[in-house]
Amino acid sequence: MKKIITVGREFGSGGREIAKLVAEKLGIAYYDKELITLAAKEGGYDPEIFEKVDERATNSFLYSLSMGNFVVDGNANITRELPLADKLHLAQTETIRKLAQRESCVIVGRCANYLLREERGCVRVFLYGEKEQKIKRVQERYGLSREKAESLIKKTDKTRANYYSYYTGENWADMRNFDLALNSSTLPFDAVAETIVDFVKRKERAAR
Amino acid sequence: MKKIITVGREFGSGGREIAKLVAEKLGIAYYDKELITLAAKEGGYDPEIFEKVDERATNSFLYSLSMGNFVVDGNANITRELPLADKLHLAQTETIRKLAQRESCVIVGRCANYLLREERGCVRVFLYGEKEQKIKRVQERYGLSREKAESLIKKTDKTRANYYSYYTGENWADMRNFDLALNSSTLPFDAVAETIVDFVKRKERAAR
Repeated sequence: MKKIITVGREFGSGGREIAKLVAEKLGIAYYDKELITLAAKEGGYDPEIFEKVDERATNSFLYSLSMGNFVVDGNANITRELPLADKLHLAQTETIRKLAQRESCVIVGRCANYLLREERGCVRVFLYGEKEQKIKRVQERYGLSREKAESLIKKTDKTRANYYSYYTGENWADMRNFDLALNSSTLPFDAVAETIVDFVKRKERAAR
Repeated sequence: MKKIITVGREFGSGGREIAKLVAEKLGIAYYDKELITLAAKEGGYDPEIFEKVDERATNSFLYSLSMGNFVVDGNANITRELPLADKLHLAQTETIRKLAQRESCVIVGRCANYLLREERGCVRVFLYGEKEQKIKRVQERYGLSREKAESLIKKTDKTRANYYSYYTGENWADMRNFDLALNSSTLPFDAVAETIVDFVKRKERAAR
């Protein structure tokens, strides 16, 4: 049976590392940033633009929403193009659905839990963590002061919550949109990944 | 090492059954309603009053809060006694702390996750479920119409949320107050219990 695991995560909770471990342990594909490039290719867009939009979306999602361009056609009608952020989201949505159809995989972020909520065999995971541990991790990874790390966590999670709620109409970190929500500060990352793997296997057995 | 597992749960999510399975699998004590009697005994109160207060608290927590009695002393000073609901909560709080000191156990409800949040080796679990499945379960268990089951779920969870937030100042179903939050509709109850047991064991190994 196909295994699809979506991973939502708080910034600094180790979500990417844990998601990669899950993919490794299950021997299946892993997608996060790679997804963007893939979406760009499949949508026929210039990958470079996609990278830029995504960067902007990460820094200020609401700003990127206002980037729709006005288009004047031959009859001097003015219409507004779909903002780049929306185009990117649409292309990603399509790609996520195609990936889930095609192969077993772990997909990080991008509202994948929402997009694939009806998919049989999909396990939707959310990872969060204790504030102090997240700050410490972000400080170490990016070489930031405590204050800057704290502010980056706040800003990034706010952007993720805005993005999620804009495209799904739901609350980003509401556990009811997930099958399994784990505090990654409770266990070592490898043990968190094992917990997810076991959950996936148990679900598979139950579906038989 | 002592194992303490607190279980918060949505009404109809199978929380009690799952918590009992966890206690069985780990071979440790299980407490929920029993806790009330125990609290009554340890606090020297009449167990019967406790049963009644608790019943009232379940039906209308805010009503029970208004039940404090006025007391007139020998000098005609009027003071207000601590409401029964508060007395009960204090006795339960003390009992939960004593139990956690004394033995490995599973404790359902009663803000135990909040009370024992600093306890080493405590795993705080929250169980929730899909609306349709919860309704079906409550209908079957209590022989209710769909409409009445839905209304009972709403009312009970609202009472639990009020109770939790009154005594802890926090949101009842905020996953950040838990180590592990599970959608009990995803797996059979036994597999949910196994997931919790494995998590507890992994935490124990990590602490060594």
